[in-house]
Amino acid sequence: LAELVRKHPRRFPAFVASLPMNDPAGLLKEARRAVRDLGAVGVQVFTNVLGRPLTAPETMPLFDLMARLDLPIWLHPARGAETPDYPGEKRSHYEIWWTLGWPYETSVAMAHIVFAGLFDKYPDLKIITHHMGGMIPYFEGRVGPGWDQLGTRTSDVDYTKLLRKLKKRPLEYFKMFYADTALMGAWEATKCGLNFFGPERVLFASDSPFDPEKGSMYPRTTIEIIERLDVSPEERHAIYEGNARRLLKLP
Amino acid sequence: LAELVRKHPRRFPAFVASLPMNDPAGLLKEARRAVRDLGAVGVQVFTNVLGRPLTAPETMPLFDLMARLDLPIWLHPARGAETPDYPGEKRSHYEIWWTLGWPYETSVAMAHIVFAGLFDKYPDLKIITHHMGGMIPYFEGRVGPGWDQLGTRTSDVDYTKLLRKLKKRPLEYFKMFYADTALMGAWEATKCGLNFFGPERVLFASDSPFDPEKGSMYPRTTIEIIERLDVSPEERHAIYEGNARRLLKLP
Repeated sequence: LAELVRKHPRRFPAFVASLPMNDPAGLLKEARRAVRDLGAVGVQVFTNVLGRPLTAPETMPLFDLMARLDLPIWLHPARGAETPDYPGEKRSHYEIWWTLGWPYETSVAMAHIVFAGLFDKYPDLKIITHHMGGMIPYFEGRVGPGWDQLGTRTSDVDYTKLLRKLKKRPLEYFKMFYADTALMGAWEATKCGLNFFGPERVLFASDSPFDPEKGSMYPRTTIEIIERLDVSPEERHAIYEGNARRLLKLP
Repeated sequence: LAELVRKHPRRFPAFVASLPMNDPAGLLKEARRAVRDLGAVGVQVFTNVLGRPLTAPETMPLFDLMARLDLPIWLHPARGAETPDYPGEKRSHYEIWWTLGWPYETSVAMAHIVFAGLFDKYPDLKIITHHMGGMIPYFEGRVGPGWDQLGTRTSDVDYTKLLRKLKKRPLEYFKMFYADTALMGAWEATKCGLNFFGPERVLFASDSPFDPEKGSMYPRTTIEIIERLDVSPEERHAIYEGNARRLLKLP
């Protein structure tokens, strides 16, 4: 990827590195190498590491490193048919693992990051969530007044202590994530997500080429939506490229 | 409940019955008894039966019965901390099972109902989903063009056959559900859900008393939202009570 960017800088202005999350020592070395030696402008990780949360002690140092480097982490959902939707079944049916399971994965990873206190430790940590923040904007009410009552539904762990330790309401931390516009042409959802994160935290993405036209449909419908949004020209420009330039430190 | 309705008809105009889904034979008997003998105007079931989908052969006859009776089925999510969010963990943390797991449960149950072909069999089947249709409206793009490609992500089952057997696009079936307004004060999400299902399929609900004020907050914030919606007076009336009167056959 570094070579591609060197050779075709006008077509590929930058790249982000994929990391070996299953190898905690190698992970940090590779992240440093990708950023310092190869010029990566961020990293992408999946929403779980071998079926465990990203905030497990082994992979936690990645967040420290990326906060120090002040470069973003892209969060991509990972789940397959082998994760059943019902405990009584062996596998997920009808590709539910993809349609619904991926946004669920993203949302669960976001919750672990929030409740691990990462945004209190690193208020400027930049994490870009796929599909406009997973389920979080639509369930703003559950995340807001619902999670304000964290602990009232649990008897064997005292979550009220955790709630008191956090400096803000849980909802406020969820607004500290960044989100992309890859909602596959969903107009109302795009407005809902944009309202939740604000135009300075939403970045253009289309999920091309995974559309029925094999690549042309999602960019077209996503651009149509962004053109229709009730935002200022500056905000529209920020969504298309300004936010990316700022986060990735591109000229 | 039947007695309560008889005694206080102005306060409790009707009731719906809870059913023993773990007892397939008793289930049908009890549904018939509740509706015919006791006057129930519908039934409520949970989104899974002992960890299996509602569309398993044992419980499928309930849909036949309710379609014949032409009365609604309320779908309530069911999941607890014992359902882990990561395969590598023993349980769900931070009450994720509630905040995110419940809408996921609702969405998964909706998908099983759609792909079991229930709406082709019973186009007038009335199923009322909690929390404004779970994740479906926000992920209209994944449910739409995403599920139009059902089968392309799976090699061991031929889902393209299933897709051809359905009379409509998957997305169109998801719009045949009804949804309630219990979004705990989420304004943008309410607009998104209303736009998806349409004002003739959205019913007032508040989730009272599970709010931080122990009952007064969610009705108040939900009513504030419905008052602000850009709908006609007739549509607003339908959301508040007209749709319920129609579905429940109340005077």
